[in-house]
Amino acid sequence: MLVGSKNYRTIEASEDQSYVKIIDQTALPFKLKIIHLKTLDEAVQAIKNMQVRGAPLIGVTAAYGFALLMNLDISDDALSKCKKDLVNARPTAVNLSWAVNQIYDALIKCSPKERAKLSWELAKNLANDDVEKNISIGLHGYDLFRACNKKTINILTHCNAGWLATVDHGTALSPIFKLFDEGFDVHVWVDETRPRNQGLSLTAWELSQYKIRHTVVTDNAGGLLMKEGLVDFVIVGADRVALDGQVCNKIGTYLKAIAAKENKIPFYVAAPISTIDINFFGDSRNFEIECRDSNEIMTMRGQDKSGSIVEVRLGSSPAYNPAFDVTPPGYITKFICEKGVFDTDEIRNIEGL
Amino acid sequence: MLVGSKNYRTIEASEDQSYVKIIDQTALPFKLKIIHLKTLDEAVQAIKNMQVRGAPLIGVTAAYGFALLMNLDISDDALSKCKKDLVNARPTAVNLSWAVNQIYDALIKCSPKERAKLSWELAKNLANDDVEKNISIGLHGYDLFRACNKKTINILTHCNAGWLATVDHGTALSPIFKLFDEGFDVHVWVDETRPRNQGLSLTAWELSQYKIRHTVVTDNAGGLLMKEGLVDFVIVGADRVALDGQVCNKIGTYLKAIAAKENKIPFYVAAPISTIDINFFGDSRNFEIECRDSNEIMTMRGQDKSGSIVEVRLGSSPAYNPAFDVTPPGYITKFICEKGVFDTDEIRNIEGL
Repeated sequence: MLVGSKNYRTIEASEDQSYVKIIDQTALPFKLKIIHLKTLDEAVQAIKNMQVRGAPLIGVTAAYGFALLMNLDISDDALSKCKKDLVNARPTAVNLSWAVNQIYDALIKCSPKERAKLSWELAKNLANDDVEKNISIGLHGYDLFRACNKKTINILTHCNAGWLATVDHGTALSPIFKLFDEGFDVHVWVDETRPRNQGLSLTAWELSQYKIRHTVVTDNAGGLLMKEGLVDFVIVGADRVALDGQVCNKIGTYLKAIAAKENKIPFYVAAPISTIDINFFGDSRNFEIECRDSNEIMTMRGQDKSGSIVEVRLGSSPAYNPAFDVTPPGYITKFICEKGVFDTDEIRNIEGL
Repeated sequence: MLVGSKNYRTIEASEDQSYVKIIDQTALPFKLKIIHLKTLDEAVQAIKNMQVRGAPLIGVTAAYGFALLMNLDISDDALSKCKKDLVNARPTAVNLSWAVNQIYDALIKCSPKERAKLSWELAKNLANDDVEKNISIGLHGYDLFRACNKKTINILTHCNAGWLATVDHGTALSPIFKLFDEGFDVHVWVDETRPRNQGLSLTAWELSQYKIRHTVVTDNAGGLLMKEGLVDFVIVGADRVALDGQVCNKIGTYLKAIAAKENKIPFYVAAPISTIDINFFGDSRNFEIECRDSNEIMTMRGQDKSGSIVEVRLGSSPAYNPAFDVTPPGYITKFICEKGVFDTDEIRNIEGL
């Protein structure tokens, strides 16, 4: 999508397939920094450090991780180790293991000497497929929201499920870009999204580059906004969706979903069907919620007076930092994916799962 | 309460009544900094800049503001201007106008030459009354919570309604200090409370000085904690309580109250009856919710590597920063004040309103 007047994707292979270019998302909103990943290990670190993040994008980054390794080592052993390292990089997003298994299965079956070429093709296809799916999500969401009979459509979103969370176009933001493109007057309430501030740092930056009106609020403010009639609908992405419609997404999503229901405001989840975990239903404790370092709460990165990016310490208390929560299906109005718009109880029947 | 091994109050008159000592709360948790207020204007600025904050404490600070002015100017005009300046310092907390009106009415009635002496007496009485009320809130809360049949009592609180929000003992934390004093195993989940981080900076600091086990979480995490059975009850303070039981408190309180109800977890509000606004009932839009500078969201203060306190900029997006929200009575299990424990529909009948 647009940064200034130029179009970018979050991840792209170099022409000679010797490295992969990514936008380093930890440098945003201060700087558009492109970095080059040259090895599998650099790809794993980029996922762990959240230089790339967002469920769809880390899946694609993992695919390129295979390709980078195949440039150096085409053995079965290398493939096995690669699979393990990548899946362990972030445990919650199901797209990661979905992508890793898909690439691994294809490569292990083919003869070693064809693996390098195939791995780059597979990764590129995965990236292009992601873009196509997100465009479809945008169209399906647009068809749903265009009926919204308001002069200005006020939308609240949590975390970043924009193009930076994917290869391009985004999931939850894709219908918003489309509404804007079609001339609707859109205004987005952007949850700051502590502790890593993906809303303030990434979503607000995307929207400002695309010239969409937006306002950052603390994660605490959404309830008040909804109660005062300032939100027409809420839309978020997902890191894992259960067959029974439970949605695992960034910590705090559940609070917004409850508040939306309480205030009779529609709450939408937008994600590709690769986010659906066919092994996940029933007790949400059946899968791991990633718990990240408490320093993410106790420190904050920002720009000092000289313009340098520095980290400051906010305190030294014990802290607990679960990265995701689970929203039960009863709070979710519709699930929007590349196949269309579904009630949560229809998710298990979506074609192509 | 205890800081290290020494007892402090948040505000105290100097022996010669020439100045007032306060704990500068903007320096916490890094440093216990005592500063001296010598003029009304310094008192107004301390309230505006949140060097003192918390509904009960700003009421008492306002009372001392009158006393500081009376040292210099005992005229009727000075009294009128003082009243206006103080009430406008923070618009939402009703204790502020409650204290200001009480002191003003007493001083305007008495002869100018007695005003200086009387004003210091009134302020000291107000401070001592606050402490007594908070001890009562602690006892009433303790009687309610001691029946909690748990090995460890897990409590979630939002913002700071501890002794730093009052002259001493606190409101929402007063029963927790009492439970701890009586030997109960207490653990407190402390909401960080963006944008000003009063939970992380003040509540966690108080609890750590008192050796009470606690864990800081982002404002986003409370829903997950409740859903996973990790919270036995929620307790918060209040900035304004309506006769019909609506509670205006720090932004984000409403989200926690909804989540508590949804998860069948008791939600308590603890505040002195001076917090009850007899003019406030019905539509919560009938009173002003203070909207603070968006820089509170877009910047963060913390300690850099050298140990200096610096401010960093997080971004430069438009932001909206309402400081409070309103929780309807249906989400509040009980209201705890110095007179006892009440259902929200009994608030209008509390003796002494």
